Amino acid sequence: MEQVLEQISLSTIEEAAERIKPLAHRTPVATSRLFDAASGREAFFKCENFQRSGSFKIRGASNLVLSLTEQEQRRGVVAFSSGNHGQAVAIAAEYVGAPATIVMPLDSPRAKVAATKAHGATVVTYDRQTENREAIGRRISESTGAVLAPPFDHPKIIAGQGTATLELLADVQDLDALVVCLGGGGLLAGALTVAAALRPEMKVFGVEPAAGNDFYLSLRAGERIGINPPDTIADGLRTPMPGALTFPIVQRYVEDVLLVTDEEIKTTMRFLLTRMKMVVEPSGAVSAAALLGGKIPKALTRVGVLVSGGNVDLDLLGSICLEARD
Amino acid sequence: MEQVLEQISLSTIEEAAERIKPLAHRTPVATSRLFDAASGREAFFKCENFQRSGSFKIRGASNLVLSLTEQEQRRGVVAFSSGNHGQAVAIAAEYVGAPATIVMPLDSPRAKVAATKAHGATVVTYDRQTENREAIGRRISESTGAVLAPPFDHPKIIAGQGTATLELLADVQDLDALVVCLGGGGLLAGALTVAAALRPEMKVFGVEPAAGNDFYLSLRAGERIGINPPDTIADGLRTPMPGALTFPIVQRYVEDVLLVTDEEIKTTMRFLLTRMKMVVEPSGAVSAAALLGGKIPKALTRVGVLVSGGNVDLDLLGSICLEARD
Repeated sequence: MEQVLEQISLSTIEEAAERIKPLAHRTPVATSRLFDAASGREAFFKCENFQRSGSFKIRGASNLVLSLTEQEQRRGVVAFSSGNHGQAVAIAAEYVGAPATIVMPLDSPRAKVAATKAHGATVVTYDRQTENREAIGRRISESTGAVLAPPFDHPKIIAGQGTATLELLADVQDLDALVVCLGGGGLLAGALTVAAALRPEMKVFGVEPAAGNDFYLSLRAGERIGINPPDTIADGLRTPMPGALTFPIVQRYVEDVLLVTDEEIKTTMRFLLTRMKMVVEPSGAVSAAALLGGKIPKALTRVGVLVSGGNVDLDLLGSICLEARD
Repeated sequence: MEQVLEQISLSTIEEAAERIKPLAHRTPVATSRLFDAASGREAFFKCENFQRSGSFKIRGASNLVLSLTEQEQRRGVVAFSSGNHGQAVAIAAEYVGAPATIVMPLDSPRAKVAATKAHGATVVTYDRQTENREAIGRRISESTGAVLAPPFDHPKIIAGQGTATLELLADVQDLDALVVCLGGGGLLAGALTVAAALRPEMKVFGVEPAAGNDFYLSLRAGERIGINPPDTIADGLRTPMPGALTFPIVQRYVEDVLLVTDEEIKTTMRFLLTRMKMVVEPSGAVSAAALLGGKIPKALTRVGVLVSGGNVDLDLLGSICLEARD
C-alpha cells in the first residue's frame, strides 16, 4: 500500500500532464463578477465541463490507457462507471485502437450512454441497487484479459486527475482555498497531492452530496465506512465508499469535507446557467454550491472551484430550469 | 449621410476597442470537435454570451456612453431595446454615474428586465404590437435632455460592435467566412467594416430568423423595406426594418443574407447546450444554426461564428430542453 501511494506524487502528476496532452484540453479558467457578488469571494472556475468528453475524467483515463504496453492495449480495457469515466475510457481506448467494454448503471443519463457507444465501446448495463459493478468489471477482465480501468482507485487515474489542479495553480496565483467535488476521491486526491507540493498553505475542501456522505462519515470515524447506494441528483458522486488509495490521501491533507443538498445543487446549476451561461452537471455544481451556500470560511477570499463536468440530459436540465418557476 | 458613414471605419473601431476596455471583456474563442463533425467545417465561436451583460451589446453601448461629455452624461441616456441593449446601456451609464431610462417591450424576458433594473436604470415598458418604441424614446429624450442611445443605427454603436470582429480576426487566422446574426444590423455592419479593411477575401454572411426577414427582402429590393413586427423566438432580432446607416454598409459588403427557422434555432441551442456546454440565447444561436443547417457554401471551411449573447429566461430554456423529448 505504501508503495502504491508513493506512485502518486507531484512528479507522476507532471509526467501525466505531458502524457495526456494529445487527448486532454487545457481548460479555461472562468471568473464571474455576478458569482463573486453572490458568494462574497473571488472565485476562479476550472472549467472541466469544457473538457474533451465533457468532464475531467479524460485526464485519468488517458493517463492510464496511454501508459499501457502495446500488448495490453490489444487485449483492451474494461471500466465500470456512472458515465463520465466510462466515456473517457472509451475515448482514450478509441485513440490507441484498443477495444473497450464499459459497465454502466441502467439509470445512467442517456446522453452519457449514447456518447460512450459513439466511441466504439461495448456498453454492459447493471442494476445499481442489486448488482455489484466492480464484480461485473472483474469478471469481464478475467474472461477477456482486458485491463481494468477503475474509476478512481488507481495511481495512474489519480495522477491524471491531479493535472487539472496543476493547470489551475499555474494559471491563478495566491489561491487561499480550493473546492473539489468528492465521489470516489480521485479528483480530490490528485488536487491534494499537487497542493501539498506546490501550495501547502492553500486549504483544500472536498464537497459531497448530503445523501452520499461516505467520506464525511469515514473521516470522522477515522476509517473507511460504506453507505447504501446514495440517492442524489449528483449521479457522478454516488460512490458508496471511499477508495483504499484515495482515503489515506484525503485523510492526510484535506481541510474538511462539506455537504450540500440536492436543492443547493439545483439552485447553483440555475445560477451558473443564467449568470455564467455554463452548463454544469449536478456533480459538477457541488463545489460552487458549497461556496454559494456560505460553507467555506469567510477568511478565505481567493477560491479555486473545480467544475468537474457538464454532461447532463436535456430532460434533467429542462426540469431543473422549470423547477424555478414562481 | 455620407459624412456619418465615414465615421464608421477601421480606425474608429480601433479607437472604440481602446475606449471600451474598462467595461467590455475580451471574450474567448471556443472550438468544438463535435460541432465540426456535425457541420463539416472548422468553426471558431466568438463567445459574446460570456461577455459582460451577457451579450455583445455592451461594446456599442459603452463606446457611445464613454464618448459623451461630462455634461451629456449628467443629463443621462435613454434607450429603447428588446433587452440586451437596454441592459448594456444601463451598465455603461452606471459605470459613469449617468441616469439611464430604458424603454422595453412588455413581453421581454424577465431575466433581462430584472438585470436592467439591477443596474439602477428606470424601466419604461410598451406594447410591441401597438406602440412605437422610438417615439417613446424620443419623447423621453426631449423632455429630460437625455442622450438617445439607439440600439444599432449610430456610428458609435456600430463601431463598438465592430470590436468583436476585430478581436476574432486577431485571435484566428485565415478565416474563409464569418457568420453574424442580423437584427438591426449593428453587429453585422461593424463586422463588415472590419472585414473589408483587414480580410476582404473573407465572405461575411448575415443570418435572420425566417419570420424577421427585413434585411433579406430589402437587399433583394435594393431598398429598405419594413415588415410587421416579426413573431420569432429570437427576441433580439425582431427589428422590423434595416437601419438607415446599417443598410448601405450591409448592402455594399455582405456576401448574402440567410434565413433560419425557429425550429433550427432551438435545435442549435440544444446542440450548444449538450455538446459545447454553452447557454446561448435564441438570437445568439442563429449564426451557428445557419452552419449546422448547411446554408453556408461547403467550399468555405474555416468559419467564424459570432455568438451574440446568452441571456435567456429559465422558463424558455427549460421548455426548449424538454421539447426534444421522444
